[in-house]
Amino acid sequence: MSSAENSFDFTPLLASGLPPAAAKWNGFPKYNFVGGNNDADQVPVDRLLAASTAVLRREGATLATYGLNSGPLGYRPLREFLVGKLRRDAGITCTADEILITSGSLQGLDLVNALLTSPGDTVLIEQECYQGSITRLVRRGVNIVGIPLDDDGMRIDAVAAALADLKAKGIRPKYIYTIPTVQNPTGTIMSEQRRAELLKLSEEYGVPVFEDDCYADLIWNGKRPPALYAMSRTGGVIHIGSFSKSVAPALRVGYIVAPWAVLSRILPIKTDAGSGALEQMVLAEFCTAHFSDHVPKLARGLRVKLEAMMEALAEQFGTAAEFDDPPGGIFLWVKLPDNVDTMKLYQAALASGIAINPGTEWSVNAGHSKSRLRLCFASPSVQEIRDGVAALAEVCRREFGVPSRSANVERTS
Amino acid sequence: MSSAENSFDFTPLLASGLPPAAAKWNGFPKYNFVGGNNDADQVPVDRLLAASTAVLRREGATLATYGLNSGPLGYRPLREFLVGKLRRDAGITCTADEILITSGSLQGLDLVNALLTSPGDTVLIEQECYQGSITRLVRRGVNIVGIPLDDDGMRIDAVAAALADLKAKGIRPKYIYTIPTVQNPTGTIMSEQRRAELLKLSEEYGVPVFEDDCYADLIWNGKRPPALYAMSRTGGVIHIGSFSKSVAPALRVGYIVAPWAVLSRILPIKTDAGSGALEQMVLAEFCTAHFSDHVPKLARGLRVKLEAMMEALAEQFGTAAEFDDPPGGIFLWVKLPDNVDTMKLYQAALASGIAINPGTEWSVNAGHSKSRLRLCFASPSVQEIRDGVAALAEVCRREFGVPSRSANVERTS
Repeated sequence: MSSAENSFDFTPLLASGLPPAAAKWNGFPKYNFVGGNNDADQVPVDRLLAASTAVLRREGATLATYGLNSGPLGYRPLREFLVGKLRRDAGITCTADEILITSGSLQGLDLVNALLTSPGDTVLIEQECYQGSITRLVRRGVNIVGIPLDDDGMRIDAVAAALADLKAKGIRPKYIYTIPTVQNPTGTIMSEQRRAELLKLSEEYGVPVFEDDCYADLIWNGKRPPALYAMSRTGGVIHIGSFSKSVAPALRVGYIVAPWAVLSRILPIKTDAGSGALEQMVLAEFCTAHFSDHVPKLARGLRVKLEAMMEALAEQFGTAAEFDDPPGGIFLWVKLPDNVDTMKLYQAALASGIAINPGTEWSVNAGHSKSRLRLCFASPSVQEIRDGVAALAEVCRREFGVPSRSANVERTS
Repeated sequence: MSSAENSFDFTPLLASGLPPAAAKWNGFPKYNFVGGNNDADQVPVDRLLAASTAVLRREGATLATYGLNSGPLGYRPLREFLVGKLRRDAGITCTADEILITSGSLQGLDLVNALLTSPGDTVLIEQECYQGSITRLVRRGVNIVGIPLDDDGMRIDAVAAALADLKAKGIRPKYIYTIPTVQNPTGTIMSEQRRAELLKLSEEYGVPVFEDDCYADLIWNGKRPPALYAMSRTGGVIHIGSFSKSVAPALRVGYIVAPWAVLSRILPIKTDAGSGALEQMVLAEFCTAHFSDHVPKLARGLRVKLEAMMEALAEQFGTAAEFDDPPGGIFLWVKLPDNVDTMKLYQAALASGIAINPGTEWSVNAGHSKSRLRLCFASPSVQEIRDGVAALAEVCRREFGVPSRSANVERTS
């Protein structure tokens, strides 16, 4: 069959409601400030190679069996590593049978959504939120109630008001979704007091908390409040996490922590015959020996890049770019002047080889997010950060008249 | 949180229509004749280790980026290996941009179903069929029309009749699903003439063929007809395949081959940020050097196990077990006397440490499949095959009175 003969028309057979067709991929833009990509120089290649060699030599033959010898929850040594890691870092007490290894935390999102939501259901999420979480809910036909954030994370007064309002309408939301520890995209960490208040509301209204902790490892000072999962007195929290940010995103290994009563209902809808075993094996071997050394080193390197980005923004945009210095993570959430529509900036910048995440894709409040954008600093080099931010300022100036041409002169004088 | 405090009740929040809760996994049964597990002795551990070392040393740093440097279709060297392999083995002419790497061929099933089917739609499938394909369709609320098979695979007269009947009712099915090359569970290979006839009907009725080729590498004499994808003159075929059977199932790497017009609509619903990259990298490195040597060697080993299983069945069940000698694959489709209900046999056998696949789970025709079962011979050793088949005969005799106690005496005399 040659492509000239592709006369069969699939169009009338497509399911309704599909997203638009993808464009062909043509490589990365010159300045890539999008996505959860990480620092290539900090992938622990030698140690992953040693881990791979050790675990394949010892257990390679078990690849002949779906789920290795560990069953459907995932490679047991990786779950056992997580039991210790979650206890040390997040204060979570759980057993290996309360952890399900997933293909990235994205599969965790899909599974929890499939477990709890149907079209027409309602959920509460942070108003500024991971794009993939928003698009999943929209595609499922789930109603989203956005909760505004401040410097301490999700505003609990707004959660209380939303829950009371929904209850008055006879609606019991399916969950309250939060990224409490280095929130995406705002970078905030929800305070311990707020966590307690959120759990109190969750119990009062019988609405579980869905805690997405996938950035929690990357905190500059290493200090974080206990996970909501750890603080719950009732088990009304489902917790997901990932190795994408702490080791390498392309590995696609995440996990769900939940009581067995919940996991036992998730397992039958995880119909993939297990997540990739080699990656689980290599990660378990690597993490057991090196995770606690690797992560602080990675965080120090990311902090250097963040500082380069904040300096470049100050230099190129002056006061036109407002942002807080985030306590961790891989991105900066930036406010530009009100006249800048970052969706238009995104398109113009892309044409100049600069990729950014426009605010409206990371928010359910278009008014609030229209002139905001998310910039990821983990993947580009320090030089690329400097050059890319300068190029972005140039595009923004051309399209929107800000920053004024004197911004960098003022700041560098 | 201790488990004694798990008082939060998720039950009223669960989505409707979920499958029943999973039981805790307690290890493999003593005699494991289920699932697509492979021969642990034939996992090419040393070569996978060498591949892993080479590719990590050369490209390990690219794990920092989702999709490596290859974009969302998957690791490019693996797609390029597949271009050559599909041309040599299946007669398929395609480019690397017409291949999407998936997390096993199971994700391929999910994506094609999501692309084409909605609740209430109709599809044609082989009456005896992979359980996972059947359960996926049932869960989606898709109507299944089962097409009977004979020694040459799917019966084309029955396809023609079903299509005409549906057309008369104003129904255009979304696809005709077939495992044409070593059919699961019957083991048949659809003849080239039938493939041509099936494609003619597909074009006439405007119903695409969904070709699942995941067992096609494992044929004893190495000879197979061209893939339906290769024979189509119109591009009306979507083809999926897997490395699970040819290299190792736990790796979870499969692929979809389709015209770009189709792949471009599948990509936006593959929202997993890419399939596991390390497994793709290791497979590409291994397969490029060793696939064509490895597969015939694996097949020879599987043939030895198949012969052990056929001998054990003949010895233990005598004429009570009917089966054809399959041309390839990892399973045997066995007919027991009509009074044997293999669903009940399955339960009784499991209690004795023997796992089998009851026929009704591998069929949409309960009447036809009630006294049939699927036995996988790839994973157990030759000794386990002998002992397990003897133990199964013992359970079957106790529960159903067949085989008669003299069966093995008759045959071995």
